[in-house]
Amino acid sequence: MGSLYLCRLMPSLHFTLQHQDPFSKARSGNIRTDHGEIPTPMFMPVGTVGSVKALTMQQLEQDVHARIILGNTYHLYLRPGTEVLKAAGGLHRFIGWQHPLLTDSGGYQVFSLAANRKIKEEGVVFQSHIDGSKHLFTPENVMDIQRTIGADIMMAFDECPPYPSSYEYARTSMERTHRWLDRCIQRFRNTPDLYGYTQNLFPIVQGGTYPDLRKASSQVIASSELPGCAIGGLSVGEPEEMMYEYTALCCSELPESKPRYLMGVGTPWNILECIALGVDMFDCVLPTRNGRNAMLFTSKGVINIDNKKWETDFSPIDEGIGSTVSSYYSKAYLRHLMKAGEISGLTIASIHNLSFYLWLVNACRKHIEAGDFYSWKQEMIPLLKTRL
Amino acid sequence: MGSLYLCRLMPSLHFTLQHQDPFSKARSGNIRTDHGEIPTPMFMPVGTVGSVKALTMQQLEQDVHARIILGNTYHLYLRPGTEVLKAAGGLHRFIGWQHPLLTDSGGYQVFSLAANRKIKEEGVVFQSHIDGSKHLFTPENVMDIQRTIGADIMMAFDECPPYPSSYEYARTSMERTHRWLDRCIQRFRNTPDLYGYTQNLFPIVQGGTYPDLRKASSQVIASSELPGCAIGGLSVGEPEEMMYEYTALCCSELPESKPRYLMGVGTPWNILECIALGVDMFDCVLPTRNGRNAMLFTSKGVINIDNKKWETDFSPIDEGIGSTVSSYYSKAYLRHLMKAGEISGLTIASIHNLSFYLWLVNACRKHIEAGDFYSWKQEMIPLLKTRL
Repeated sequence: MGSLYLCRLMPSLHFTLQHQDPFSKARSGNIRTDHGEIPTPMFMPVGTVGSVKALTMQQLEQDVHARIILGNTYHLYLRPGTEVLKAAGGLHRFIGWQHPLLTDSGGYQVFSLAANRKIKEEGVVFQSHIDGSKHLFTPENVMDIQRTIGADIMMAFDECPPYPSSYEYARTSMERTHRWLDRCIQRFRNTPDLYGYTQNLFPIVQGGTYPDLRKASSQVIASSELPGCAIGGLSVGEPEEMMYEYTALCCSELPESKPRYLMGVGTPWNILECIALGVDMFDCVLPTRNGRNAMLFTSKGVINIDNKKWETDFSPIDEGIGSTVSSYYSKAYLRHLMKAGEISGLTIASIHNLSFYLWLVNACRKHIEAGDFYSWKQEMIPLLKTRL
Repeated sequence: MGSLYLCRLMPSLHFTLQHQDPFSKARSGNIRTDHGEIPTPMFMPVGTVGSVKALTMQQLEQDVHARIILGNTYHLYLRPGTEVLKAAGGLHRFIGWQHPLLTDSGGYQVFSLAANRKIKEEGVVFQSHIDGSKHLFTPENVMDIQRTIGADIMMAFDECPPYPSSYEYARTSMERTHRWLDRCIQRFRNTPDLYGYTQNLFPIVQGGTYPDLRKASSQVIASSELPGCAIGGLSVGEPEEMMYEYTALCCSELPESKPRYLMGVGTPWNILECIALGVDMFDCVLPTRNGRNAMLFTSKGVINIDNKKWETDFSPIDEGIGSTVSSYYSKAYLRHLMKAGEISGLTIASIHNLSFYLWLVNACRKHIEAGDFYSWKQEMIPLLKTRL
């Protein structure tokens, strides 16, 4: 195992910091993986069970211009299961996605979706939300599952405590998450890449909404030799301002030289604010879930496309964001499709919202490079929040 | 109105008969419209409310290679309504479809979907299946609605009697449909094209399952000066052999020089058999509806993709039919998407089935041109019917 261990000390994932905004903590960079490069800041569409909801891989690549997508370990483990994924040669081949993939650890889903979960030091026993069957997730088998999925970026197994949690609960949970991290790293280092490319592991900061715990957890994560850092346990119901404060706190402790991933965030304005705090990577179901519920994020504000005011508005959904779909279809047509319950309405709304998110992070990158990110962000935020 | 009338005698729609199969009545041809050419035999995907279910226009054009699609007058009239369609400048512009469009007359839907319908000589009073509101369809206003929709090919308002119907009912209904046809032609000739391109009207053969009525109706339709002929009232529950017999009977009476459209047909083998009987155009919801229900038509037979046997079958859905989607995704992945209830599964299944239908009619065309259509069809039919 000696050579494997060495291999882990030189991960294939390499982050290059490119520009730093003079008026905020925003930065641009580049993450290199064996499946291609990811310019940062970047938004990662969520492909829960190996499909970004309502989109084909062609739409994801050609319309949305996604560079990396996320899969959910909990969902993929339950369906189609690791046997199918292994037989397919990993998730990339199973779903036909040739770019980087990140998988979460299943921790969040076990706590938010599964029934009768029971946390022990060993791991978490839970029942499937699909058929009630009983399962055990441990730091070790979650590494094995993510190895089998074949994600370019795997996430450590963590507990995401609810908001609010008592200090005592947040501390106990955080400490266990840190012990689980050690076990994840151990297992990760002692198991090989399965499909001929290098996989990478990111640890996750927890600590609830207690400054000393967040600081302590950030320091533990910062001291790991892993090639990136994630911030978990935020955007779980706490006020927006609190989410920003804790993101800032975590970022100030995490190393400059590694990409920072803020898990599960958020609205377009959340993303701009958190980029200003030093975050490089984001994922969220908001653009697809809200799209399916008729809420569109555009460069001019938020649209409820069900609203009668769009009935004869034949202007494009959103021009100038570089998305074919968003310039091709009118607001009136999309409204009609949504009112009539057409599947293509869900698809067009989801493609638009994701295209908009990708446009937004790319615009951030350009403004960071141009040095005017901060003033641009201050102008954009009220615009993005406008209800049209 | 004199010049308008003259204009109607020289329709823009022009059919050129190209090849005739020596061993059957199959033929290939070309329909020219102001929105482009349609090689025949052709299958027309159904875009009920201005959307082929689960597909975007880009997928319809680039993946399916559809040449003409169908809209339902009944559905479009109820939602989004003629005011919206008129304001949009017609259905082509509203939905972003630049190729030919055909609309049915709403007759079939009024009888199959609407509540409390009442047939009078004037027309049909019915209640919307959406909100119960009361409406009247007459030959005249159905022409006006289709003018507003802006279809390249409009259909005459007809009654489609159920199977079985008594001789008396079928005769009475047919005669009324013929009187309605005269009123449709009159209205059509006295109203202008609205959007700068020429619209065309097709009459519909009815007559139930009575040879003398079918023959009489075919002769009435054959004697019209309209540029195409449709066969309605078949594939409504009668045995398959009976459908073939009546299709053959109608085709034998209809002019060689005009395209023949068999409405609402059918399975892949139905289409091959009816092409052999002289039909040029088809539409059916089967490829999309059955696709959404996990039934795939392929060049090797019929697949129920929900079946466990496909769980680890990583071979493409169907290779060699010239569809990117059908060669890109595996049976195992599509099965997984369908089992997990993912929208993208519905989309991929629908794209595949439609691509297969378009591949099939194009293959017919090539075999008609090569002169070996009949023997090829005889080999294909058992293959297409195979349950895989």
